Amino acid sequence: MYFPSWMRQLYRGLSAQPAWASPRRSLVLSPHRRLPEFSSFIARTNTCGELRSSHLGQEVTLCGWIQYRRQNIFLVLRDFHGLVQIVIPQDESAASVKKILCEAPVESVVQVSGTVVARPPGQENPKMPTGEIEIKVKTAELLNSCKKLPFEIKDFVKGAKEFLVPSREPGKFYSLPQSPQQFKQLLMIGGFDRYFQVARCYRDEGSRPDRQPEFTQIDIEMSFVDQTGIQQLIEGLLQYSWPSDRGAVALPFPSMTFAEALATYGTDKPDTRFGMKIIDISNVFRNTEIGFLQDALSKPQGTVKAICVPGGAKYLKRKDIESIRKFAVDHFNQEVLPVFLKTSINWNSPVAELIMEEQRLEFIRLMQVQEDDVILLTAGEHQKACSLLGKLRLECADLLEKKGVVLRDPALFSFLWVVDFPLFLPKEDNPRELESAHHPFTAPHPSDIHLLYTEPEKVRSQHYDLVLNGSEIGGGSIRIHNAELQHYVLATLLKEDVKLLSHLLQALDYGAPPHGGIALGLDRLMCLVTGSPSIRDVIAFPKSFRGHDLMSSAPDCVPPEDLKPYHIQVSWPADSESEKNSLNLHQES
Amino acid sequence: MYFPSWMRQLYRGLSAQPAWASPRRSLVLSPHRRLPEFSSFIARTNTCGELRSSHLGQEVTLCGWIQYRRQNIFLVLRDFHGLVQIVIPQDESAASVKKILCEAPVESVVQVSGTVVARPPGQENPKMPTGEIEIKVKTAELLNSCKKLPFEIKDFVKGAKEFLVPSREPGKFYSLPQSPQQFKQLLMIGGFDRYFQVARCYRDEGSRPDRQPEFTQIDIEMSFVDQTGIQQLIEGLLQYSWPSDRGAVALPFPSMTFAEALATYGTDKPDTRFGMKIIDISNVFRNTEIGFLQDALSKPQGTVKAICVPGGAKYLKRKDIESIRKFAVDHFNQEVLPVFLKTSINWNSPVAELIMEEQRLEFIRLMQVQEDDVILLTAGEHQKACSLLGKLRLECADLLEKKGVVLRDPALFSFLWVVDFPLFLPKEDNPRELESAHHPFTAPHPSDIHLLYTEPEKVRSQHYDLVLNGSEIGGGSIRIHNAELQHYVLATLLKEDVKLLSHLLQALDYGAPPHGGIALGLDRLMCLVTGSPSIRDVIAFPKSFRGHDLMSSAPDCVPPEDLKPYHIQVSWPADSESEKNSLNLHQES
Repeated sequence: MYFPSWMRQLYRGLSAQPAWASPRRSLVLSPHRRLPEFSSFIARTNTCGELRSSHLGQEVTLCGWIQYRRQNIFLVLRDFHGLVQIVIPQDESAASVKKILCEAPVESVVQVSGTVVARPPGQENPKMPTGEIEIKVKTAELLNSCKKLPFEIKDFVKGAKEFLVPSREPGKFYSLPQSPQQFKQLLMIGGFDRYFQVARCYRDEGSRPDRQPEFTQIDIEMSFVDQTGIQQLIEGLLQYSWPSDRGAVALPFPSMTFAEALATYGTDKPDTRFGMKIIDISNVFRNTEIGFLQDALSKPQGTVKAICVPGGAKYLKRKDIESIRKFAVDHFNQEVLPVFLKTSINWNSPVAELIMEEQRLEFIRLMQVQEDDVILLTAGEHQKACSLLGKLRLECADLLEKKGVVLRDPALFSFLWVVDFPLFLPKEDNPRELESAHHPFTAPHPSDIHLLYTEPEKVRSQHYDLVLNGSEIGGGSIRIHNAELQHYVLATLLKEDVKLLSHLLQALDYGAPPHGGIALGLDRLMCLVTGSPSIRDVIAFPKSFRGHDLMSSAPDCVPPEDLKPYHIQVSWPADSESEKNSLNLHQES
Repeated sequence: MYFPSWMRQLYRGLSAQPAWASPRRSLVLSPHRRLPEFSSFIARTNTCGELRSSHLGQEVTLCGWIQYRRQNIFLVLRDFHGLVQIVIPQDESAASVKKILCEAPVESVVQVSGTVVARPPGQENPKMPTGEIEIKVKTAELLNSCKKLPFEIKDFVKGAKEFLVPSREPGKFYSLPQSPQQFKQLLMIGGFDRYFQVARCYRDEGSRPDRQPEFTQIDIEMSFVDQTGIQQLIEGLLQYSWPSDRGAVALPFPSMTFAEALATYGTDKPDTRFGMKIIDISNVFRNTEIGFLQDALSKPQGTVKAICVPGGAKYLKRKDIESIRKFAVDHFNQEVLPVFLKTSINWNSPVAELIMEEQRLEFIRLMQVQEDDVILLTAGEHQKACSLLGKLRLECADLLEKKGVVLRDPALFSFLWVVDFPLFLPKEDNPRELESAHHPFTAPHPSDIHLLYTEPEKVRSQHYDLVLNGSEIGGGSIRIHNAELQHYVLATLLKEDVKLLSHLLQALDYGAPPHGGIALGLDRLMCLVTGSPSIRDVIAFPKSFRGHDLMSSAPDCVPPEDLKPYHIQVSWPADSESEKNSLNLHQES
């Protein structure tokens, strides 16, 4: 699995170097210290392979695998870049460090901090690039323990929605990857340090107007990285590559927790180019006698919430308000109360007489209502009320913009990290059981690990989404690198058949480094940057709504003799259906 | 089809910029003139969109499409980068230039040279970035004429060997591309200036030990480029990205015609790290009485050829010689005569007595024979004799190296361009008919165009291969951009059904620019650079000999219900065969 350094260099020369190099140079973690290029974005100060006599006296932090140990005095630490000798402290005061370094099985992953010192005369190793020095360790941390190598690879899970490719073996099919998620994790476990790929992905989602069956991801995975490291890398990449005629990209991007995004914008992908935020006004109404508000507030998670549509009284017609109310009932089974308000006069609302002056003033203060604004108010369970108002916020923005009000500056690019997602969600069909909010390899938030064993539904994850102007353009996570934890999540919490993922569980057991990654949807990003209405406009030879490549007439008929080597035959449906399909085909644009 | 400039910038930032940027900077065509970055490697000095007042007085050469023409006095020329106004000369002496520029249909492709001059006062166009200047044209060349737009896209040819992907429409299949050849040509025709892709390609070749069903190409296509431009780009790319611990890459790479490669090395991919070249010794033997030599020489293309194996008398055993002779008979139906020679004594050969002293000396001189060398001599048709000796040259090199003789320095990387390939080859099953040596879009050598209509078999092409240490690592060509010529090649010379390629023929008719490209096999290049025995060693999760991904167990069985949406079912072969297949599966490593 060792990947020679020149190969990385070639790879960087061919593709990745400038994009990462520039942010790497600019995003040093500390202004007083220039980080070596392979250690940007991650906790280590140096790689194992790079240390020389010129580093003597430097305090360094290294991450790597224990290659071997000699008489509990030395160990050799290895990372992607090379080997370095570590001196295990022998004095009483460092007993805990010694314990970690001596008890960890070979191929376990550790992080050590210490000083670069010269080897005693005569103990230099001229055959080893780092053979003149060794590390006098002060602190050590076991990042992952390793079982006895080697491991065996067994089965592999196959997701739905993957395109099938018949092989020449009867009844056997390849599938086209939806994403290289597990493969890139396995590369990290195998000792690769960083993985960058412009990955072509395939997803058979049937007819979806805003997606393409073939799309492109900037796919990234790194070892020894944390959430901040990944985020800084992506911010630097976008700033570096951002088109100059689209304005500068300011760093760092703002960050918002999922909880705040939901409460304020009613969605996990807030469009932060404009206001109309969701305001919780439960306290204003807690002591009124308005029946439906009291009803809502008395239930668990019951809230009263509202958005203020600026100029709504002027721009929204009666039919707009009616369609908003209908949408709320149809899609959320919720009532929405429009409140037209001249700040100086009485409420134009049937519930106005039930509200006292004090509450009225507090309401106006909280909502920052101006004359001609309209308030859309709803009462109900927190998440449902937020989701509804989040939809109505975008709907009203559309309506206002149709009347010429500019709410979302098309020249503005508003990036946002959404973080601290829940790790699990209740299953839709059985809310007592949990399912992964993203995927089962996502690591829990470090502060919430104890909750995994008591209240798993409250655990936040180390998943992060990158949102641009209200569209998700990327997402990733720090992954679980501990086999035991992964097994607990899969078997106990998710009640999955762990046999299907045994290959990953086993791999984690053999010295998997902490790792994480992200994927950016390149097509969708391009679409937003160009202001194109569809990702079809930024893809060469895009597929149509029905998944057709109009240029090459794919998919197309294949003579039966061409199917023979693949041991398949077409199951023709009844004639009528076949005709219907062929008709639809001709109707499409 | 217009591709905004920032998008190119982003693309370059993300992936391609440094690789091309560095050679671009270093590979200026003239030391006295710095070429603008978008005009490197090609004939133009500037792009249409970049000219400003700062260029006043400069002599420029531009390539582009005729956007429109005003009263035969002005025309607006467009390329990927923008528009510029051209002043059509009106004086008698420039009648031919005027004729070209006035008679070419709109959207035709032209190359013009002239001077950047200021527009007369009051005629500046502030809305046009180049609106302060215009080009006073001196020379013009019609590169391609354009029919009336727009064109319709019709059918598309489907090659064998492409993996099929069943779609949700009954009986309809996608196929995975073997290479984006036609798509990238269509991008050029659509006005893209340069196309770079790290392209994942798929080829179902069944069991082939040295190939992978999924592989990666560095795929390139450029407009207004010639063979030299493409070669310089690739040389710069390889030099820039070459690993420093593999020695420097000297530019330019040497070049050899196909004819010379065949005559000297017996192959179109010569390993030029060592000698043992093929020598034509026909003239030495023209006047001997050795029957089989006279027989061979009396036939068309009849030759006598030989290679000199240094130290062969010392290193090659009798069984080696026997196996060489057997190989020649089995694979080429040719006799090979080993000639063991002490330069000072008589030939150790049955034909020695038939050769006169004068011929013997001439033979020794030509072959530069040393004591202990062995000559392998054959007589027959030129190409066959060369091919055989080319194979034996490599075979003998293997044999000698097994005995410890170092012929091919593993630290040496010997690049070679092979050029001037034949455009056509006689069909194997019917030598009176022609087939394309590479593909039917390859442009003929400019010096040989007249031969297309008289002796097409003699036409050389503008195809070029890049060879490294005897392996082909890339190949490409300048393409035919003239619809009439393409039609003639397809219909008259190749007797193809032009309907299958009508989409390309039509596209060529609508102002296709001159264009060409190349693809490097990234996996094979990596394999050579690392000195790996197989491309499987440089691919993450490679497929096995039988095309299996051992990590994910692909291809794998699929439950019948998962096949239903794709309207296919498995045609199970007889039980025994199925069992046999499953057995083979388990036996593979």
